[in-house]
Amino acid sequence: MTSLSPTLTTAFELIRRPSVTPEDAGCLDYLSQRLEKLGFTLYRLPFGEVDNLWARRGQQQPLFCFAGHTDVVPPGPQERWETDPFTPEIDSEGFLRGRGAADMKGSIAAFIEALEVFLTRHPHPQIDLALLLTSDEEGPAKNGTVKVVEWLEERNEKIDWCLVGEPSSTTQVGDVIKNGRRGSLGGRLIIKGKQGHVAYPHLARNPIHLAAPALTALTEEVWDQGNAFFPATSFQISNIHAGTGATNVVPGELEVLFNWRFSTELTAEAIQARTEAILKAHQLDYVIEWQLSGLPFLTAEGSLVAAAQTAIKQVTGRQTQLSTSGGTSDGRFIAPTGAQVVELGPVNATIHQVNERVAAADLEQLSEIYSGLLESLAASIEVSQANV
Amino acid sequence: MTSLSPTLTTAFELIRRPSVTPEDAGCLDYLSQRLEKLGFTLYRLPFGEVDNLWARRGQQQPLFCFAGHTDVVPPGPQERWETDPFTPEIDSEGFLRGRGAADMKGSIAAFIEALEVFLTRHPHPQIDLALLLTSDEEGPAKNGTVKVVEWLEERNEKIDWCLVGEPSSTTQVGDVIKNGRRGSLGGRLIIKGKQGHVAYPHLARNPIHLAAPALTALTEEVWDQGNAFFPATSFQISNIHAGTGATNVVPGELEVLFNWRFSTELTAEAIQARTEAILKAHQLDYVIEWQLSGLPFLTAEGSLVAAAQTAIKQVTGRQTQLSTSGGTSDGRFIAPTGAQVVELGPVNATIHQVNERVAAADLEQLSEIYSGLLESLAASIEVSQANV
Ligand SMILES: [Zn+2]
Ligand SMILES: [Zn+2]
Repeated sequence: MTSLSPTLTTAFELIRRPSVTPEDAGCLDYLSQRLEKLGFTLYRLPFGEVDNLWARRGQQQPLFCFAGHTDVVPPGPQERWETDPFTPEIDSEGFLRGRGAADMKGSIAAFIEALEVFLTRHPHPQIDLALLLTSDEEGPAKNGTVKVVEWLEERNEKIDWCLVGEPSSTTQVGDVIKNGRRGSLGGRLIIKGKQGHVAYPHLARNPIHLAAPALTALTEEVWDQGNAFFPATSFQISNIHAGTGATNVVPGELEVLFNWRFSTELTAEAIQARTEAILKAHQLDYVIEWQLSGLPFLTAEGSLVAAAQTAIKQVTGRQTQLSTSGGTSDGRFIAPTGAQVVELGPVNATIHQVNERVAAADLEQLSEIYSGLLESLAASIEVSQANV
Repeated sequence: MTSLSPTLTTAFELIRRPSVTPEDAGCLDYLSQRLEKLGFTLYRLPFGEVDNLWARRGQQQPLFCFAGHTDVVPPGPQERWETDPFTPEIDSEGFLRGRGAADMKGSIAAFIEALEVFLTRHPHPQIDLALLLTSDEEGPAKNGTVKVVEWLEERNEKIDWCLVGEPSSTTQVGDVIKNGRRGSLGGRLIIKGKQGHVAYPHLARNPIHLAAPALTALTEEVWDQGNAFFPATSFQISNIHAGTGATNVVPGELEVLFNWRFSTELTAEAIQARTEAILKAHQLDYVIEWQLSGLPFLTAEGSLVAAAQTAIKQVTGRQTQLSTSGGTSDGRFIAPTGAQVVELGPVNATIHQVNERVAAADLEQLSEIYSGLLESLAASIEVSQANV
């Protein structure tokens, strides 16, 4: 067996540590050792049962930050894995296999390699460097990035550019980067009726019957048309429940859970008001609980997006595509501080699935893209300073 | 304490036996002893775990049958009972308390007393007498009356008149008798979609969204207008379920359980065809399982209804009201054999509830109504034979 590249060596070390969310399983300890040697100052920030790491190199602005997570989703049914999920290996097609290979231990390995390459060339760079790592991205995301960002704001530390290593690519590494994300708003609706016996419907009020036209109206509503950066806002009902199984009982209430992924054309408040107007128009007796998981954010243009586009072009020859589609990421917590945020990582085809894998060659390209991006940002500072 | 009347003594004996469905707890043994003394021939008919009794007196036609059940629904939360559910007592307001007092151990006690009174006056009556008792009315009703009726049909025994002791009265004993019942048709509908992530709705097909307009159409459908004997057919959704609790997943399918209570204006086949037409008009991918629990039946007029009306009028002074509303009863199994069937029993205000009770005086009146009804039927035979 040939020896592994530095990026793959780091990826192996991380995959070997079974850090199923919220467990860190020693990943942050391992990364701390690596970063200390590179001159980073380390801050371990445990919140609740979650371990987090803030590592910074330099005291001057501007600050570039790699953000990511060491936790992984559970492997799922072991018997459906062709290899052990926590025993990394390179398969015969040249893919690194294991839970977290693509989401996102491979990206973190590429972070480390890019920093080593960049700092070897530039021992005293014009930009500060940082890593924000959490083991709470795949879980409730309550004690991870959001708390670290609060801690940074208290210390008045400000991130200027943030690259989140989430697997943004769809078929080839770098083909898509996310320069924003839709907002996510959830609702839990209880429609109240009156329980009774199906044989005496005049003594009951069936909440399913009462709700059906209102739910139809909600699904048919055109919430917006999106805009140049965002697809149209979408509404999806994820759960609907009424009745205890008895076939002769009219249930007393109906529970409906739904979610909007919304563009910058709408606010959470506007969606809430329009929803309640529809429910009231149908004269429903209801209660609704709202849960705002993230506001939409957008890094429309600027030095970070430009540096990412340039680095991808140089390493892969590809014209990358900007996208704001898909799920939420921890970028939603960082963008509101005023940072430019992009998400750029490997191909996401197998994430959260059994037999998760990523092309080993893609991780090498990814670390080159990351170091190229650092070069480009540092160069932009030197140019602007030379111009002063 | 004054001594109990014969009817109450029997009711006490039955309530004391905790015959929670499908347990008989010795009720049929006790009743067998009583009926044997009255000259009945006994047939114990166990089917599966259910005990049943067919008791007949006489070999000649026509045959009058009391039908009922010794099983009771579970008592529910013990702490909400003011008295022990299986320790009968007469409360300070003169009500017999205990599980089954109204549904329908009180009626069975009245059957026995009515037979004793009638047979004392008419040791050689012009009509045959029978009891059909099961301990499977409150449960699945698979191994009770339906099986006894099959057994009778094999033996070519035919019931001419059947009085089911279900609590038909609403506020005063005898104010309502049921001379028919609506049919009951159930459906279990699975609407198929395609599972996915709420952030990628274009890759999923949400079965809740697809179903909502069709469910609205089903609830708004006017199935019929009923007729002189039956209220309009009613449709009720009893259960609706989709989603496993995850708020970011579009579920793959939706399950809906519904039920029709239908009049003699409709057939089960007609309802099924109209339902499938609505589902197809909404272009749904679905499967549906049908469960026909009972066809509608009607004993519009005849000697049995007339005898019941006369007996109620004589004992209570009341003009009874004919009704076909409410749930199903074991009458649905007996009526298709060609028997005239009425349901006549005590006030149903507390049945299936905690603190079930029935006025002790009502049970005395009920046994007088039952014996009066037997007198009336026997007299009608004598008249018709005299006329031959
Ligand atoms: Zn991830
Ligand atoms: Zn009953």
